[in-house]
Amino acid sequence: MIDITPRSSPGDVIGGGGRGSSSGYHRETATESDTERDFGHSIGGGNHHNQRTMHHQHVPTHSAFGDPMDGALSFYGSSDVQDDIPGIGQYEDFHTIDWQRDIARDRMRHRYIVKKRQDSLWDLIKGSIDAGSGWLCVLLVGIAAGCVAGMVDIGASWMSDLKHGICPPAFWFNREQCCYPAKQSVFEEGNCSTWKTWPEIFGLDRNGTGPYIVAYIWYVLWALLFASLSASLVRMFAPYACGSGIPEIKTILSGFIIRGYLGKWTLLIKSVGLMLSVSAGLTLGKEGPMVHIASCIGNIFSHVFPKYGRNEAKKREILSAAAAAGVSVAFGAPIGGVLFSLEEVSYYFPLKTLWRSFFCALIAAFVLRSLTPFGNEHSVLFFVEYNKPWIFFELIPFVFLGIMGGVIGTFFIKANLWWCRYRKFSKLGQYPVMEVLFVTLVTGIICYPNPFTRMNMNELIFLLVSKCSPGDVTNPLCEYKRMNITMGNSIIEVTEPGPGVYSSIWLLMLTFILKLALTIFTFGMKVPAGLFIPSLLLGAIMGRIVGIGVEQFAYSYPNIWFFTGECADSNLITPGLYAVVGAAAVLGGVTRMTVSLVVIMFELTGGVRYIVPLMAAAMASKWVGDALGRQGIYDAHIALNGYPFLDSKEEFAHTTLAADVMQPKRNETLNVITQDSMTVDDVENLLKETEHNGYPVVVSRENQYLVGFVLRRDLNLAIGNGKRLIEGISSSSIVLFTSTQPIQNLGPQPLKLKKILDMAPITVTDQTPMETVVDMFRKLGLRQTLVTHNGRLLGVITKKDVLRHVKQMDNEDPNTVLFN
Amino acid sequence: MIDITPRSSPGDVIGGGGRGSSSGYHRETATESDTERDFGHSIGGGNHHNQRTMHHQHVPTHSAFGDPMDGALSFYGSSDVQDDIPGIGQYEDFHTIDWQRDIARDRMRHRYIVKKRQDSLWDLIKGSIDAGSGWLCVLLVGIAAGCVAGMVDIGASWMSDLKHGICPPAFWFNREQCCYPAKQSVFEEGNCSTWKTWPEIFGLDRNGTGPYIVAYIWYVLWALLFASLSASLVRMFAPYACGSGIPEIKTILSGFIIRGYLGKWTLLIKSVGLMLSVSAGLTLGKEGPMVHIASCIGNIFSHVFPKYGRNEAKKREILSAAAAAGVSVAFGAPIGGVLFSLEEVSYYFPLKTLWRSFFCALIAAFVLRSLTPFGNEHSVLFFVEYNKPWIFFELIPFVFLGIMGGVIGTFFIKANLWWCRYRKFSKLGQYPVMEVLFVTLVTGIICYPNPFTRMNMNELIFLLVSKCSPGDVTNPLCEYKRMNITMGNSIIEVTEPGPGVYSSIWLLMLTFILKLALTIFTFGMKVPAGLFIPSLLLGAIMGRIVGIGVEQFAYSYPNIWFFTGECADSNLITPGLYAVVGAAAVLGGVTRMTVSLVVIMFELTGGVRYIVPLMAAAMASKWVGDALGRQGIYDAHIALNGYPFLDSKEEFAHTTLAADVMQPKRNETLNVITQDSMTVDDVENLLKETEHNGYPVVVSRENQYLVGFVLRRDLNLAIGNGKRLIEGISSSSIVLFTSTQPIQNLGPQPLKLKKILDMAPITVTDQTPMETVVDMFRKLGLRQTLVTHNGRLLGVITKKDVLRHVKQMDNEDPNTVLFN
Repeated sequence: MIDITPRSSPGDVIGGGGRGSSSGYHRETATESDTERDFGHSIGGGNHHNQRTMHHQHVPTHSAFGDPMDGALSFYGSSDVQDDIPGIGQYEDFHTIDWQRDIARDRMRHRYIVKKRQDSLWDLIKGSIDAGSGWLCVLLVGIAAGCVAGMVDIGASWMSDLKHGICPPAFWFNREQCCYPAKQSVFEEGNCSTWKTWPEIFGLDRNGTGPYIVAYIWYVLWALLFASLSASLVRMFAPYACGSGIPEIKTILSGFIIRGYLGKWTLLIKSVGLMLSVSAGLTLGKEGPMVHIASCIGNIFSHVFPKYGRNEAKKREILSAAAAAGVSVAFGAPIGGVLFSLEEVSYYFPLKTLWRSFFCALIAAFVLRSLTPFGNEHSVLFFVEYNKPWIFFELIPFVFLGIMGGVIGTFFIKANLWWCRYRKFSKLGQYPVMEVLFVTLVTGIICYPNPFTRMNMNELIFLLVSKCSPGDVTNPLCEYKRMNITMGNSIIEVTEPGPGVYSSIWLLMLTFILKLALTIFTFGMKVPAGLFIPSLLLGAIMGRIVGIGVEQFAYSYPNIWFFTGECADSNLITPGLYAVVGAAAVLGGVTRMTVSLVVIMFELTGGVRYIVPLMAAAMASKWVGDALGRQGIYDAHIALNGYPFLDSKEEFAHTTLAADVMQPKRNETLNVITQDSMTVDDVENLLKETEHNGYPVVVSRENQYLVGFVLRRDLNLAIGNGKRLIEGISSSSIVLFTSTQPIQNLGPQPLKLKKILDMAPITVTDQTPMETVVDMFRKLGLRQTLVTHNGRLLGVITKKDVLRHVKQMDNEDPNTVLFN
Repeated sequence: MIDITPRSSPGDVIGGGGRGSSSGYHRETATESDTERDFGHSIGGGNHHNQRTMHHQHVPTHSAFGDPMDGALSFYGSSDVQDDIPGIGQYEDFHTIDWQRDIARDRMRHRYIVKKRQDSLWDLIKGSIDAGSGWLCVLLVGIAAGCVAGMVDIGASWMSDLKHGICPPAFWFNREQCCYPAKQSVFEEGNCSTWKTWPEIFGLDRNGTGPYIVAYIWYVLWALLFASLSASLVRMFAPYACGSGIPEIKTILSGFIIRGYLGKWTLLIKSVGLMLSVSAGLTLGKEGPMVHIASCIGNIFSHVFPKYGRNEAKKREILSAAAAAGVSVAFGAPIGGVLFSLEEVSYYFPLKTLWRSFFCALIAAFVLRSLTPFGNEHSVLFFVEYNKPWIFFELIPFVFLGIMGGVIGTFFIKANLWWCRYRKFSKLGQYPVMEVLFVTLVTGIICYPNPFTRMNMNELIFLLVSKCSPGDVTNPLCEYKRMNITMGNSIIEVTEPGPGVYSSIWLLMLTFILKLALTIFTFGMKVPAGLFIPSLLLGAIMGRIVGIGVEQFAYSYPNIWFFTGECADSNLITPGLYAVVGAAAVLGGVTRMTVSLVVIMFELTGGVRYIVPLMAAAMASKWVGDALGRQGIYDAHIALNGYPFLDSKEEFAHTTLAADVMQPKRNETLNVITQDSMTVDDVENLLKETEHNGYPVVVSRENQYLVGFVLRRDLNLAIGNGKRLIEGISSSSIVLFTSTQPIQNLGPQPLKLKKILDMAPITVTDQTPMETVVDMFRKLGLRQTLVTHNGRLLGVITKKDVLRHVKQMDNEDPNTVLFN
């Protein structure tokens, strides 16, 4: 039977006690002055598994060691004290977090609160608030994300229309609102009398060359204004606000600290900049940055609740939920958002988080839907109103679309990476605003003449995926000659494309090439910019063209067996469906999403009927893409920027052992501290000469059996405080990590530091395959592990060593793993 | 820089070599005779992390040790050899699997195939087939699951109708098919002239007391026949086929071996028995067992592909996908199925599996839909045809439904558990067939008179969730008086319930009580039985009653602000929606599902519009349920049966240390093997005296520094073979686990067993908190871990020790953790 003598007396949770030999986890109170980074050569840092030992939190004036201090003041002894201690659970910027420690700290906290709950009613209430704070937090995040998304939507829509004209009766109306009573098609502009284009404002005609040129110039000028504003705001106030932010959020969620990346300035500038850069008509979407915006909101609200704000591991639960809310508001797809967060963005995703993320995503979508006054039920983006069945034969073109999507996606990734690398290492990178202005100018000049490129990308996608109704005359894509023919014993309506369709196809092809080229140069510029919409657009164009082709094939050969087998419908083939499938294919090729892609597209189109075509295209796209180039766009950008991201999806497939990866290498010596034979001077010298974040403690130099692990921060502070506050401690005092005093102690009083020793470091043997080590780093969220042989300490493996090793084994330059 | 000297020469992957000191993983070839179980007092077993060392696979006639054998024959040297070796990667029945080892074995295999691929075209083809085998396997599983589900559906439907009558023109038609041309409501029976009820077959009238009694008797007799057949089949041929199977599948997926639980006999008997027991009119559903059936299919097909069939960890990827397919065919909800598998059933769910599971679920749903000839697009179960908005105020009754769902669910769990425990420990458990017959008799006699209980549960649910159309006269629930009243400046239609509605409410209440009581006694009987449908039914009844109440409230007080604020619709309140929400609430209360519940209900009802109400009810239900009783029905049954399931959702919140849990306890001694000082006799005595599954190897008795871990199976075989086949080995030979020979070796030739030593066991220190240890067991899938202090071995913690400790800390009897 197991001995379950309670090892904590009532006061014990906050005091010391238990086993006498319990290690003491200690967070010093002074903020550290040295800003050394994890990226240099350093052995780990972090302190593992201090669940039962974190009791010993001392206020600044108290020393961090020595038995006399036992339980004097504790982390949870008073919430005031808690607030007084800076740096608790905090890490330095650009450092890796220690998941195990943070989760342990949270459980410790939770235990304390549960215990306290019985003391008084107030504690009970506090406990209940604490228990519900996770839900409250995601509720607030959801509401805020919905509101911000609504504002961005409305603002971007208004400013986009501002390029073309204004609504004189109410200048704050966009064109749709201005023309609402007239209910006009999105394609045809200017028929609405309340809405005035810029030429009209200046008293010119609606049509003609002169007004056209005036409109052209105004369009380009507005675009330049918006783009320069956006780029300048980003450059001046929040450099982190550029790009889509998803690679960085992936890195942050995998357990990395980037201060300010999710701050309030980033939120503000990204929201405003996003509106501006979308309105500038640049080839970018606002869906990806929504994830970043929502994550900022998540981060900001998490600071309201100490449970999350003060614990980086717990905070990531909120951030995962916020990322789901971001996709949810971007596409109006709550389930897809959760799956996106699970599949693509998040790293550590316990099932509790799944449920909470879903709640957050749903609230956000609900709030957004309530806010957008003119939006219909579904279309945050586009809604497919048709509900016709597809026939089995069509899987062939769908798979073809998938293959093309994979090819286009990979081509885009490679071209974009090449350009980004060029920008990074050339002088171009020094003139971000100029670059934005130049690209905006080119975009504006090139895109205006072509009606497909002139309109918003969202509108174009909507046009491409929608069905041609018989009465539609404004849309050139729908210029069909309709006729009824008799086939067998039924009359069916067939359609022959008119000249408008043919000219549209040529225009669409031009649009495809233009948008592809522009997106390659746009994504990566220093403005908020997403990739979802451009990818969807490219795919929708491709799909629509293929769809019209298949439609005409079916029209020309209506008697082929695979058409006649089905109930002969009026129009067998829906080109709009091909646009949807093509959009999914290219987006899949670019991002390598799978389930979340299908679910998002399914939620967008709103019909369970088209899951199989979407799945077929997504699978083909993913396979072809993976065969052509291993990484999706986000992973490629992570690698380009050298973020320390240990991919949990890729398998480590090499046969190296822990002994091959550990530091130090054969000819170097391992820096260790002995448990009872080094003096204060020795330790201080060690701290001076090396810059590791932590040091293993061993029995003795001769017998390097592992005793524990001690953090540099803790050691620095404890020695400083000891020398200052405890009498009898001098430079020749022995630093003691044991509870028993060595017998032949003739010198000055020893400095007892057992409390700051982590006695439960994670270890592996030198013969452990790196596969297992990598697995442990991923699943347990380690910062470092100690390598032993027959109990003897051989070395240390840090997360950075692992990342470098992975790179090396994949024949990439290991030195790219750093933050630059 | 890291030394990346390639440590494997071309032949090295299949031979030995590399570092000289590489440990050898060895699987002996004889099947073991001793059938000791993991459940007794035993220290672990399993062998960790042998990725680079699994080369040494020897055919039976070769000894498993000694350098001369190095690389003589290998695991992958020849596929024939591979097939010849029984027991590879296999575990004994009722043992825990070692995830790390199995995953490592698969990677080893994969590396070998990738390497081999360059050798010849045939190897390239084989490699490609291997790479695609996962997809092929889930494709086959999906198709087969769809087919089997279709057969069960059709069979159950036919046999259910057989209780009432027969279709003389074509006896293999069920009533719906028989009456198809007439297209009748499901509620009113007998209006179809082709379908003959039993009284009519015997020449009696359709109505009247006599025919009623004849029909009654036939109904009960058929029910008894079906039930007895079902129970007897299960009892005689496949005892594992009873129940829903989900608790066992959860346990299997968490890494436990139950031979035959997913075998072909179980599949066959469960399918047939399920049809029979559903047809018998018992209060059970066929949806839960579908998961078991699909998992059987997954298991059977996985044996077609050695990659999965021979590797328990990889096989579980297929099983996860199959479980998703099971839910997918049960409800026609592929996304819900995947989320169910992820959230509820699976344990180890890499993202690759997510995508494959989705594919499998989709194929299964697609096949099923193609098979069911009369089913409409959506309704594998029920489809909500209305699409009216709900008003904000309605969230109050929805949350109320959620609370009630939690209460009812918890009550059901407690009552059912109480009865199951009684059955288990009383004489009742010895007469399973009698029990089934008795319950069937009672069910038949009680349920026939009430039209709601007489009809199939699916049909009743359909009735409850559907909207009342004005012309509906056959459904008593729709007996409304309709009238138009003028309110403000609009004329609205209001409805007042007629007497049929009131009497229906009373009947529904009676139905609720009956079904609740019957389900409590039915679930757990020795027939295939699921819980989803009874739970949904209970919830739908409750919801419909509440819905009618709210509807009448709105009718009586139409001017209350929260009604008038919305666009005054003809019928504000849809009672059918309340039935849907109530169904979700009770199912949530019983199973404690969250996201998957909402998604399944969303896919069933087919409208994104009702996600928020469903979510509100599911959340309320889950919270209330968790507050009243911690476990869902599946976890409760796992605990009842003592399955070794380490829940990955519950947090371990205690402060014990590894030292408190490890074996041996303070006064016992640890059984170890020394690396170079024990004789063959010593080891054989140790093997005789103890029954641990494995033994740690240490430097010496005095210096118990950990060297490695050796499995009992391996040790037994190696010593036997050594004594038999190598000259000079006698009982006094030293058993040597080092590569260097001890100097003072005067005795007979030593027996070198370094090859069977696992040199990379996972270790923790004695001060490691159990939280971390439990986390490591869960996330790394360990069988055991070794406990050290300053490098010295102190003890062992097995998975069973952990499970017992968790029980103990939760104040439960730790001795319940065993298979009984």
